[in-house]
Amino acid sequence: MITLTSDFGSPYPASMKGVMLQRTDARLVDVAHDLPRQDVRSAAFWLREVLPYFPPATHLVVVDPGVGTDRAAVVVRAGEHLLVGPDNGVLLPVARLLAADADEGPQVFEWRYENPESSTFHGRDVFAPSAAAVHDAGVEGFTDLDPVAPTDDYVDLFFPEPDVRSDGADGEVLVVDDFGNAITNVPGEVLDGRAEVAVNRERAPVEPAYAHVDPGQRLVTVGSHGNVEFAVNQGRGDEAFGVDVGDRVSLSW
Amino acid sequence: MITLTSDFGSPYPASMKGVMLQRTDARLVDVAHDLPRQDVRSAAFWLREVLPYFPPATHLVVVDPGVGTDRAAVVVRAGEHLLVGPDNGVLLPVARLLAADADEGPQVFEWRYENPESSTFHGRDVFAPSAAAVHDAGVEGFTDLDPVAPTDDYVDLFFPEPDVRSDGADGEVLVVDDFGNAITNVPGEVLDGRAEVAVNRERAPVEPAYAHVDPGQRLVTVGSHGNVEFAVNQGRGDEAFGVDVGDRVSLSW
Amino acid sequence: MITLTSDFGSPYPASMKGVMLQRTDARLVDVAHDLPRQDVRSAAFWLREVLPYFPPATHLVVVDPGVGTDRAAVVVRAGEHLLVGPDNGVLLPVARLLAADADEGPQVFEWRYENPESSTFHGRDVFAPSAAAVHDAGVEGFTDLDPVAPTDDYVDLFFPEPDVRSDGADGEVLVVDDFGNAITNVPGEVLDGRAEVAVNRERAPVEPAYAHVDPGQRLVTVGSHGNVEFAVNQGRGDEAFGVDVGDRVSLSW
Repeated sequence: MITLTSDFGSPYPASMKGVMLQRTDARLVDVAHDLPRQDVRSAAFWLREVLPYFPPATHLVVVDPGVGTDRAAVVVRAGEHLLVGPDNGVLLPVARLLAADADEGPQVFEWRYENPESSTFHGRDVFAPSAAAVHDAGVEGFTDLDPVAPTDDYVDLFFPEPDVRSDGADGEVLVVDDFGNAITNVPGEVLDGRAEVAVNRERAPVEPAYAHVDPGQRLVTVGSHGNVEFAVNQGRGDEAFGVDVGDRVSLSW
Repeated sequence: MITLTSDFGSPYPASMKGVMLQRTDARLVDVAHDLPRQDVRSAAFWLREVLPYFPPATHLVVVDPGVGTDRAAVVVRAGEHLLVGPDNGVLLPVARLLAADADEGPQVFEWRYENPESSTFHGRDVFAPSAAAVHDAGVEGFTDLDPVAPTDDYVDLFFPEPDVRSDGADGEVLVVDDFGNAITNVPGEVLDGRAEVAVNRERAPVEPAYAHVDPGQRLVTVGSHGNVEFAVNQGRGDEAFGVDVGDRVSLSW
Repeated sequence: MITLTSDFGSPYPASMKGVMLQRTDARLVDVAHDLPRQDVRSAAFWLREVLPYFPPATHLVVVDPGVGTDRAAVVVRAGEHLLVGPDNGVLLPVARLLAADADEGPQVFEWRYENPESSTFHGRDVFAPSAAAVHDAGVEGFTDLDPVAPTDDYVDLFFPEPDVRSDGADGEVLVVDDFGNAITNVPGEVLDGRAEVAVNRERAPVEPAYAHVDPGQRLVTVGSHGNVEFAVNQGRGDEAFGVDVGDRVSLSW
């Protein structure tokens, strides 16, 4: 099984599928192709949110603002999963999670490529062929492939850490989802036992689910990712709370 | 085969796919994930429009404004099809159609679940696992699954009935599709033999297909669903006729 | 394998999938369903861009402003590929490319259909069943199917030719992609060895890839399709260069 994630919109992902289907019979499963454009951190967040629900698979990821420069291509082994994508850190946060139960953490390899057909579409010309190849070689065999070489010299990425105190927490909005839920880096546990909190000094109720407030009303909840999120029942939390991706947010109680 | 329908946008549907692929080898087919948000009636309309074209399958449907409340999860058997989703009526109109040629109408079962991982994403934590389980158990075997129990206590949903008279018909716009076609609940037969009708007292031609009028011109036609729809050739019927979902419309001749 | 391409948005493509899955076990692969509405030339461009990366397959294409008129349905054989769609020229540019290495060029057949269920959704009622049938019959057998008849009377389509001279080139913007890259019909070779060119008399740098200029800066590059395109690193080239689909553009050096 190969999953596909990109910020390509349409129809470029189909070219990647064609390239892979020339080379492998693997099942192809789309994760998303409408991730925020060239936003490596958002992509890393969504991969960490979604991929751990998959069985062992090869994951092709192309959010690649550095396409056509000398940035490397990497293959990351994380437990029984393989991840293929550009060397910009996008694969690492999810790789750490996928390897959490394995004997060792993520292992990073360079995929050495030469003269791709284009300098603007490495998803098609570099990453799709490499994903098909490492998939068919498998987690035990892919290191025997000629272009694969272990490396310690790669770009890593970490999400900002929240500051959790006894009287509140300072954090950041990591992403806003399609519903308008503003998802922070603050762990949901800080809401345990609380009926309301102040978000940037304005009070809002803490509720277990959207429908616990009336349509159009604000709430603070723990999203499916386990983090604090700002939401509106049947509306957009980002607008109601006046926050956007990257904004610092202050919770207090 | 399992079909997937939701209002989740992206990338949440991929989490549901991962959960199912952990449990089953079934083919997964997306119906839509961009249905109008938390609009149970629109979803019920589109399911009734699309699912009857499928071979026997399990259909996972998550349009679920009541997620995290005490609303039940249900499994509906309709002929050789199984439907899985929240107990809000969304499954029933299509189930009646899918069961039309079977010996009996839709049979509704509760899927009893406890303590899902999240209270905001039952698509991933309740419905995807249950869809995988009932799919693999099959239409004959799924009633043996522990969480499945027959029930008569479920939410049903009916579309509003039009008022068809000898001199006209009063109905309602049920949905507007991506092309801007405004689809009503008035059966297409009322247009038989007519060259024009009045829509809210303004005359418009009745045509068999969009290209029978010039680009930009209005027409009244029978859509692929068999209902009266208001359209514009290469344009948006909803705007040209000034109607939106839920609006009452009056046809006269 | 059957690929699907349309301008249907959602959820109509699912009806086509259901119809095909009633008739065939073929793998279904979406190319795109959000192509510019009823824009035959854009669709022809994207098909020519994407389908050559696929292994031999049947390609269902429905961009069909003439639905419900007397326009024919056609099946085109191009090497080991089959294409199915409306007789409006959309299939021909890619068919010429797919047949480039075959012994002969594209061969066009009419698919004779009668009284489809609807006059507005031939994707579901005419093209999906015919795609399933020709797929299962194969490139050698599909001509034995009853509805298939060879024809010389079909609509063809050619992209406009650019005018390339020693001091510049005049061309046209064929499409704008989801990133905002404005893709012309001018072959990329004209940029060989140039550091900058004038686009409609305004100078812009020639670069091999987006990230070779700062974010927000304009560049002229050779896209993955091999043509000259106008782009902005992490921005929209169509807006920065003030061009849109169909605009004439003048390059000079």
